[in-house]
Parts: sequence; C-alpha cells; structure tokens
Amino acid sequence: MTEFRKDMLTNTWIIMAPERARRPMDVSQGSYLMEELTQWDQYCPFCPGNELMTPPEVLAYRKPGTGSNQEGWTLRVVRNKYPALSPSAEPKTVKKEDLRERIEGFGYHEVVIETTSHSRDFAQMDIGEIEDVIWAWRDRLLSLRADKRVRYALVFKNYGHNAGASLGHPHSQIIATPMVPKKIKEEVDSMRTYYENTGECLLCAMLHDEKTDGKRIVEENESFTAYCPYASASAYEIMIVPNQHASEFIQINGVAVKDLSQMFWSVSRRLNAVVGGLVPYNLWIHNNPWWQDCDTSFFHWHIELVPRLTQLAGFEVGSGFFINHTLPEEAAQKLTSIEIA
Amino acid sequence: MTEFRKDMLTNTWIIMAPERARRPMDVSQGSYLMEELTQWDQYCPFCPGNELMTPPEVLAYRKPGTGSNQEGWTLRVVRNKYPALSPSAEPKTVKKEDLRERIEGFGYHEVVIETTSHSRDFAQMDIGEIEDVIWAWRDRLLSLRADKRVRYALVFKNYGHNAGASLGHPHSQIIATPMVPKKIKEEVDSMRTYYENTGECLLCAMLHDEKTDGKRIVEENESFTAYCPYASASAYEIMIVPNQHASEFIQINGVAVKDLSQMFWSVSRRLNAVVGGLVPYNLWIHNNPWWQDCDTSFFHWHIELVPRLTQLAGFEVGSGFFINHTLPEEAAQKLTSIEIA
Repeated sequence: MTEFRKDMLTNTWIIMAPERARRPMDVSQGSYLMEELTQWDQYCPFCPGNELMTPPEVLAYRKPGTGSNQEGWTLRVVRNKYPALSPSAEPKTVKKEDLRERIEGFGYHEVVIETTSHSRDFAQMDIGEIEDVIWAWRDRLLSLRADKRVRYALVFKNYGHNAGASLGHPHSQIIATPMVPKKIKEEVDSMRTYYENTGECLLCAMLHDEKTDGKRIVEENESFTAYCPYASASAYEIMIVPNQHASEFIQINGVAVKDLSQMFWSVSRRLNAVVGGLVPYNLWIHNNPWWQDCDTSFFHWHIELVPRLTQLAGFEVGSGFFINHTLPEEAAQKLTSIEIA
Repeated sequence: MTEFRKDMLTNTWIIMAPERARRPMDVSQGSYLMEELTQWDQYCPFCPGNELMTPPEVLAYRKPGTGSNQEGWTLRVVRNKYPALSPSAEPKTVKKEDLRERIEGFGYHEVVIETTSHSRDFAQMDIGEIEDVIWAWRDRLLSLRADKRVRYALVFKNYGHNAGASLGHPHSQIIATPMVPKKIKEEVDSMRTYYENTGECLLCAMLHDEKTDGKRIVEENESFTAYCPYASASAYEIMIVPNQHASEFIQINGVAVKDLSQMFWSVSRRLNAVVGGLVPYNLWIHNNPWWQDCDTSFFHWHIELVPRLTQLAGFEVGSGFFINHTLPEEAAQKLTSIEIA
C-alpha cells in the first residue's frame, strides 16, 4: 500500500510507493560508476596548470609564495565562464510589453573548484580539504551579501551526469539573484506561518520530532544531525540540520565546520556503499533570504543532499508531486548499518 | 547578456542564458538515438501477444470479434502493474502524529499502450493512431471524473530515458489523485487572479499576445496553436493551446481531435529534425481541477510538450529557477524552417 506524506517544510504532498522500485525497465538507465578515475586531466579547466582556462580567481587558498591564477592552490573560486547571470547587468530595469515581462540578468555565478584532484569528491577527500570547501562557501557568501542588490545566493553542487554536472572535476557553484527563489519563498512561508501560530521554529520542531521518533536518523554529532526526512521527495535524500537554531549558514563556526566536514565525508561514503558506485547527487544550502529587514527568529538554515538515482519524469515535472520508491525509514536503516572507514 | 523572463501562468521567473549552450562538457551526455528500432519485443509487456503480462484492460480499441486481454487490439489501457496509487485505499484517513501527516495512497494509475508497435511514437504513427490515443485519454478522464473522490487526473507521457521512461514501447499514463497537484494550483491561482482583475482569461490573453508578436509560433490550425512560450523553462518547450476558451480537455470534439493529432505528429517530426535523433520528451495536459463547484470561466486547458535535452540540476531543483539555454524565438524559428513530410 502506498501513501501520501506531507512535507511540512514546503507544504507539499509526496507519494511513497516502494512497490514501484520492483518495476521492470528496458530503457538503459546508465551506470553510476564513472569512467576511470584520473587524478589529472590535461583538458580539464579545473585541473592545476590550466588556471588560464578559467576566468580570474575571486578567491583562492594557496601555498605561501604562489601568485594568483597560477599553480600552488588547494582551492579556487572563479566566476563561471558561461554565467547564467552577470553583476554588470542592471537588476532594476523591468521591461514590460503586454504580457511579456523581463529583467536584465543581474547576479553572480561562481564556481568553487574544491580540490586539485580531478576525481576526488567528498567521499575520497581528506576532512581538512572538505573544511576548506565549507570555509570558501562562507567567504563567498559574506562577500556576495555585501552587494545590497542581491537577495539570495544559492550554494549548490552537481556531482555526476544524472545530477546535471557538465564537468567531472569536483566543484560546487554559487548563484546569487536579485529576487528570492520560489523554493526558498515556500520554506519561508511555512516557517513563518508555523512560528506565528506556535512561537516555535518549524525546523527545530521537526528535528526534535525526528530525534524522538529516531527511525530516520543517519548520523549525529555535536553540531549537526543528518536524517532521511519523513516526507523525502526521493530515495536516500538526506537533510543536514544544525542542532542549534540559526538562520544563516554564515553563522557557522570552527567546530561546526569540522563537524559538517566529517558528516559530508561519512554520509557520502555511506551512500556510495549502500547504492553502489559513485552516487550522482545534488546538494544545496537553504538560508534565510537577505531581505531588507532579516527576521532571524523563524528561519533555520539547512542542507539537502539529494542522490539522483532516477530521472524526474512527466508526472513529477507536470504535477509537482514527487514519487519516492524508497521509504526513508528503510534508507536510514541501510545507511546506518554500513561500516565505513 | 542573459535575462529573467516572467512566466505569467505559474508566476515564476525563468533565466534565459543562451551563452551557456556553448560550455564544454566532459561528463558523458548520452545520445538521443535509441538502440535499434524493433517493431516487436518478446519481453515487452506492451507488445501484442504479451497481454497477460499486464493487469486486465480497463479500455481497449480492438478489431471486431476479438476478446478482452487477447491480441486484436490497436490500443489498450491497463492499470499500472506497479501503481503509485490505488482505488482501494481510503482517501479520507488523514493520520497525524506530531509533525508527521499521511493519507493512504488513494488514486488511479493507468497506462495507455498507444500502439501495437514497440517503437513507433507520434512522429512515426499514422494520424488515425494518434487520434485514438487522444480519444482514449478522453474516455478514461470521463470515467475517472465519475469517481467523486478524485480531484485531478494528470495525463502525461515520458518518452526516452532522459524523460524518465522505464519502458521503451510508446505509452502514456494517467494518475488521478484526491488532491489538486501543486503545479495545477499555481496555474489556477494565476488564472483566477488575472480573471478577477481583468474579466479576461489569462491564457486567452497570452495566446493573443503570442499571435500578435508572432515570433514564437510553431504551428496553427483551426483548433490549436503551438508555440514556444516567451518564458519557456527549457529548450524547445512547446505549448499547445486550444484557440477557443475551454476549461477541460474532455470538451474536445472530433475536428479538434484530428487537428491535435496532426499537430502532435508534425511538431514531433519538427523536434526530431531540428534536435537530431529521437528526442526524449515529457508531455502533459493541464486541466481545470474537479472541484465541487467547477468555475469554468477562468481556466483554459492546454498541453505542454517538454523535450528533455539536459538534466535538471542542483540550481533548478534547489531554487525553483529554471535556466533555458535556447531562446524560444530561436527555437520557433528553427522548428518552422524545417521541411517535414
């Protein structure tokens, strides 16, 4: 028997249909194993020695004595060479012609080249390398936040073809926009309504409920809890939530960076071990928007890590309902029963 | 220079970034050409002779004198063997436990086996065959509409791996739910607001605007107009809209079925010719929901045909913004400049 479960955070019904995992497929689904894992690729714009193939750095962590846009870095952030948005555009110009409304493509689109290695993702990196990725996200958000035209900046990551990555070298991206994205607005609305009705943060309450129920917890440390949400939209989806209420990711401190880094490493290893191969995934951070007047009391920042094991199909895209073929209780049970080293 | 364009129908901003089509890719993107095109596959549950591999028919168009669930059909509709929802579930039972809310998976999930041929899709079918597909959708919607527990039924189609198809044999699906899907609610809200403000149907106005501007029209016939919407969320997206206001697809008549059938055929051929190969796509019908009291004045039914040429990635799924790499003006220009026969 299948069931609808309500995602309180987005006010959306999800369909849980584990029976559908058994259906036959004759259309090739590809494989999650990437080709051979090379450490360096001469044609990759993100590999060391190819610094001039990217736009100039906006941030880099490098060995002392090495110059900008040369080798010697351990992490680089550059503007996307093919940006979706540009800071030289003018966000205020709304042009309206009958029913056709447009705004110049103002914004920022940056790429965080997470490591020098062409193929080591979170599951293969050292914890210290992952810490640097997290610090780089924070550094860039602090900088983008200073541009008062920006209302939101989404940190996200696409890993593997199924997750929409066009380049294999591990990287994350940041896109900053002059308006608050739809998905963020939905969460803001749910969290605000709940706060107004109860005086409590919705995600604090959901986290407490998950911890009490216990069936979907994957990992816990001092700073964070990782769990497969009760109303996960897709299989093996993992939510990483700070244990203490905080509205913005940039409030993260040194201990929490270490804890999050450790969690990214171990959760990625669990996923790869359970699903098999190098699991394609998306990851994003949901933050309080940068309104004129940021109320920090009701929004609780969090990270969603979404393995992309199936294609989004016509029903999902055409209706907005998601069908999940793996119960989150079962996903969590499998993820926690794995030995990782 | 990129730009934001507002989709008035869903009240969503889309990012138009044609420059991004030029970016390099080293992650394999697969190919749109399917393997060899076979007319019959002994293991395919949708091929003739394999009728007992599916649940029993709920509808079939067959040659006179042939019995149910045997050969002799030209089109069959069966319950999905691995249904996301079931009519034997009880839609009213909302079970709430703290923040965990669920409803039994009530609904219908049907498969329209569109043709006997394992590999002929709209672009290869006869017009008469496509007409039968459209009549079958109508017959099934009329039947599902009689179950007063159903609030919406989405007709949709997944063709090709990138579009989420698990079986290659051309088929469409219908999923009926006890609640109105999120995407439909968004359109209802936009159309209702516009109607309340202007006394006009929003989609009538948008269609008029597209016809007047003229740059994005792909095809027109007596009953329908096909165009690449001004704020298309993805490349080569095509909207098919009835020229006369009507709130529900089931109001379609014989002339319109012929016109729509012809349009599916020619639009599919145009897409395949321009993009190359057999283009993976999703298609869905958006209808007025089956509220208790259906106001038919403001909702205008329509079809969206969405080629799935790229993967939805972290930015799209995490923010709700879509990035389109092909301007709809350019898509329409290419689609209309093709000779089809």
